[in-house]
Amino acid sequence: MYTRIMKITFIQTGGTIDKDYPAGNNNHGYSFEITTPAVKRVLEKIKILDFEYEIIECLKKDSLDITDADREKIKKTCMETPNDKIIITHGTDTMDQTAKCLSSITGKTIVLTGAMRPEKFADSDTDFNIGLAIGAICSLSDGVYIAMYGRVKPVE
Amino acid sequence: MYTRIMKITFIQTGGTIDKDYPAGNNNHGYSFEITTPAVKRVLEKIKILDFEYEIIECLKKDSLDITDADREKIKKTCMETPNDKIIITHGTDTMDQTAKCLSSITGKTIVLTGAMRPEKFADSDTDFNIGLAIGAICSLSDGVYIAMYGRVKPVE
Amino acid sequence: MYTRIMKITFIQTGGTIDKDYPAGNNNHGYSFEITTPAVKRVLEKIKILDFEYEIIECLKKDSLDITDADREKIKKTCMETPNDKIIITHGTDTMDQTAKCLSSITGKTIVLTGAMRPEKFADSDTDFNIGLAIGAICSLSDGVYIAMYGRVKPVE
Amino acid sequence: MYTRIMKITFIQTGGTIDKDYPAGNNNHGYSFEITTPAVKRVLEKIKILDFEYEIIECLKKDSLDITDADREKIKKTCMETPNDKIIITHGTDTMDQTAKCLSSITGKTIVLTGAMRPEKFADSDTDFNIGLAIGAICSLSDGVYIAMYGRVKPVE
Repeated sequence: MYTRIMKITFIQTGGTIDKDYPAGNNNHGYSFEITTPAVKRVLEKIKILDFEYEIIECLKKDSLDITDADREKIKKTCMETPNDKIIITHGTDTMDQTAKCLSSITGKTIVLTGAMRPEKFADSDTDFNIGLAIGAICSLSDGVYIAMYGRVKPVE
Repeated sequence: MYTRIMKITFIQTGGTIDKDYPAGNNNHGYSFEITTPAVKRVLEKIKILDFEYEIIECLKKDSLDITDADREKIKKTCMETPNDKIIITHGTDTMDQTAKCLSSITGKTIVLTGAMRPEKFADSDTDFNIGLAIGAICSLSDGVYIAMYGRVKPVE
Repeated sequence: MYTRIMKITFIQTGGTIDKDYPAGNNNHGYSFEITTPAVKRVLEKIKILDFEYEIIECLKKDSLDITDADREKIKKTCMETPNDKIIITHGTDTMDQTAKCLSSITGKTIVLTGAMRPEKFADSDTDFNIGLAIGAICSLSDGVYIAMYGRVKPVE
Repeated sequence: MYTRIMKITFIQTGGTIDKDYPAGNNNHGYSFEITTPAVKRVLEKIKILDFEYEIIECLKKDSLDITDADREKIKKTCMETPNDKIIITHGTDTMDQTAKCLSSITGKTIVLTGAMRPEKFADSDTDFNIGLAIGAICSLSDGVYIAMYGRVKPVE
């Protein structure tokens, strides 16, 4: 499956991985906001990357708030990109549902990942999980997979 | 290739990934030391991991100092573990050489990885690279591979 | 003002400095919680500290939720500790109000500090601000002060 | 001692605080290099700072390598800046010696600080120590002081 040149399309949908503490004073409280994609910061930190990538900001939602219409939007985004290697960052609570919704797509390798702790936190699992998803997408054939908790599982 | 239970053997050989600043005052200077395996700290940070693992401290050397005898020791360690999924952390300078030395081993999936910046550093690529190696080992069949720079390459 | 032995009493009241992302799955949403005192983690990270300290968990509130009764509780805690060097970690929004409420206390050096970004975040200002407050308390005579934004201001 | 506007001159001399892992491949080994001043990165991380500052790169040495001539250079730099608030970042091994060399300077508040762990490390004490030195310089009258280990000591 190894090719000299590889390109990955990252699709942001929101979830814990992208949560940040609001910068302004107007939101004083206890609440988070969804920021720019964490995957951008992770990949910029790795000084040498031997693949090309693009990042599409599709949704910015906690995954419990993702609707059927949102899932159709994610699916459409996957199908419309000419690229066949796709990593979706997603909240963990409904990652399974979104994965199932995408399982009818053929001819593409799609890996969903996310995080238990926001990327902005010092003890986040984000770097590890993005690495896990990329290690999987480098090695797998077509299909939809979930990469979390140090495992890569095909979606039936 | 998905199995309900997965076990990974991690083998430490040293390299940048495991370099730390000496704690004591007796070494005042500009030099590093090789610490306990970085992979241990990375995996302990991820609160939920759906695989079992062991970590073998085989060597603690900058990879430019690894000798043929050291490579035989690494090979022996790979062959003697009953486990068939092995991730070796290794300095980047001679990772290729060690990978080639291991390529005659059959019946096991062996992935070598390392880091450009020590795990102890705030901007290290270690978490990402350990994730990358695990994502690869979850997905690959037998053989020897190098997981670095966001890619997984088979060793010929 | 330099003494051979120094002891500091830290008083937690809550605020951004102590906010964390909830560990459990039951709170899925966008909200923070106030954790154990950040100052504890900061001081444990500094391997050699040449002073003694105690940490009192007085309140766990966003500072916009602190009431007059809460302020009386903070004041009482300051007065009841036999120690005369006190650092209070506090939300930034109403730090001034609490400082004024404490300004009638005599014979003690009280420094309030906090953070713009929670200590759990990789880019937090917590370590810096705790250092700032300690640098101030080492050097100041009796009174109430706010240590924030790289400055130490007496409270009138 | 509180003034509406404050300016601090930071002087880099090197030491553990500024050590980094070399980026290039030509230095493969176990050695560090002295980078751009750590204090620059620390202050840029704090989003709001209520003082002005300049950073002078005076020396880039492990403090065991600092000579008498180097100390004269540091002293000259302190005396030539029109500013009267100076923080010197310095290796811990000979910080005392440099402090004594500066003790004849009058009309300025000079605080020396450094770090046990390089600023580039995830568990560094640099942010805390820079905060400590600034907290001291906000609060002290003329003299030379060492701010380390959570204490601020006048130099006799």
